[in-house]
Amino acid sequence: MRQATTLIEFWTTRQGLLEVTRPIAEWTKSVGIYEGLLTVFCRHTSASLLINENAAPEVRTDLEAYFARIAPEDPDAYAHDDEGPDDMPAHLRSALTQTQLTIPIISGKLALGTWQGIFLFEHRRRPHRRSLALHLLGD
Amino acid sequence: MRQATTLIEFWTTRQGLLEVTRPIAEWTKSVGIYEGLLTVFCRHTSASLLINENAAPEVRTDLEAYFARIAPEDPDAYAHDDEGPDDMPAHLRSALTQTQLTIPIISGKLALGTWQGIFLFEHRRRPHRRSLALHLLGD
Amino acid sequence: MRQATTLIEFWTTRQGLLEVTRPIAEWTKSVGIYEGLLTVFCRHTSASLLINENAAPEVRTDLEAYFARIAPEDPDAYAHDDEGPDDMPAHLRSALTQTQLTIPIISGKLALGTWQGIFLFEHRRRPHRRSLALHLLGD
Repeated sequence: MRQATTLIEFWTTRQGLLEVTRPIAEWTKSVGIYEGLLTVFCRHTSASLLINENAAPEVRTDLEAYFARIAPEDPDAYAHDDEGPDDMPAHLRSALTQTQLTIPIISGKLALGTWQGIFLFEHRRRPHRRSLALHLLGD
Repeated sequence: MRQATTLIEFWTTRQGLLEVTRPIAEWTKSVGIYEGLLTVFCRHTSASLLINENAAPEVRTDLEAYFARIAPEDPDAYAHDDEGPDDMPAHLRSALTQTQLTIPIISGKLALGTWQGIFLFEHRRRPHRRSLALHLLGD
Repeated sequence: MRQATTLIEFWTTRQGLLEVTRPIAEWTKSVGIYEGLLTVFCRHTSASLLINENAAPEVRTDLEAYFARIAPEDPDAYAHDDEGPDDMPAHLRSALTQTQLTIPIISGKLALGTWQGIFLFEHRRRPHRRSLALHLLGD
């Protein structure tokens, strides 16, 4: 069994879901693992990861609206606002979703279901450079 | 170190939590790993995974009621309803719980706590066939 | 490639977030892995794990207040209260956060971002002894 690691970076341009399935799948393929395990780790506390539907664009909009509703910007609700009103909601939305995803590789492919995509969830309003750490092991 | 993968399938009969600890533990045992790591991955965006209490049945009922309350069916709340009013809440409840669980194996057993069970969380009202991808590595 | 496992225990003294990054990083370092994968698994259903900001103390307070608000103690809301009014909210807050975290190790260090800390989230009011199972593999 062998392993490989890398850091990949994305510039987010807006608050919300950015699909990152393709660059992750391409790096995975380049390593040449037929059976194994991929881990994707988000190195931030105001962005996170999510696997969700990658077909209907309304799913993405509804997801974004939902998290904006259950962890809203609200100047009166939080003590922490060092970086503005979207600072603390970003930490809450990160806490409610994933910092890390681990996906089996079977027969040379990520074992994602037909409708599953991997999304980077940007919780800040301004563009940010986001770094994901990837770890792959297998044969 | 060696590894093994499999797909296991479940037919869900109702919306809610289905305990799947036993078939997962049985497959793990059949591979014969004494020390290692098991990953369970749910290949769907309207069903998810959860580790929770496996003793008191009320915990299950309360969990189901809670997620129905915080991500409710509501025809006015979502743009996406291709498959009916339980479609978008299913994606939201998946986003709030887990797509994947990774569990250490120590001394030949999953390192689950005494009261922990692994649950498949069906978010759709109608029965579905659900597929979990399992990856196991170790010695 | 080689692997190591251990159980580490913590006594929580209050409801809320307890940073556990250092003891986890120290055990990881003691195994001497330069490239690999660490898994931290919480063996309880009324405590959980979270990666979040480790700098501003208000983030911690706001997180605790937020989860107390969205999964509140409420004698009328739950059927399950075997261990008191903080019993079922503890299971809900666990379900909304993480039972397990997996973190790549790159160049001899956990690939955590600058502001990321690993937290054990105690959801019960009374002090508890909490056990984490750790699994490490790599070279």
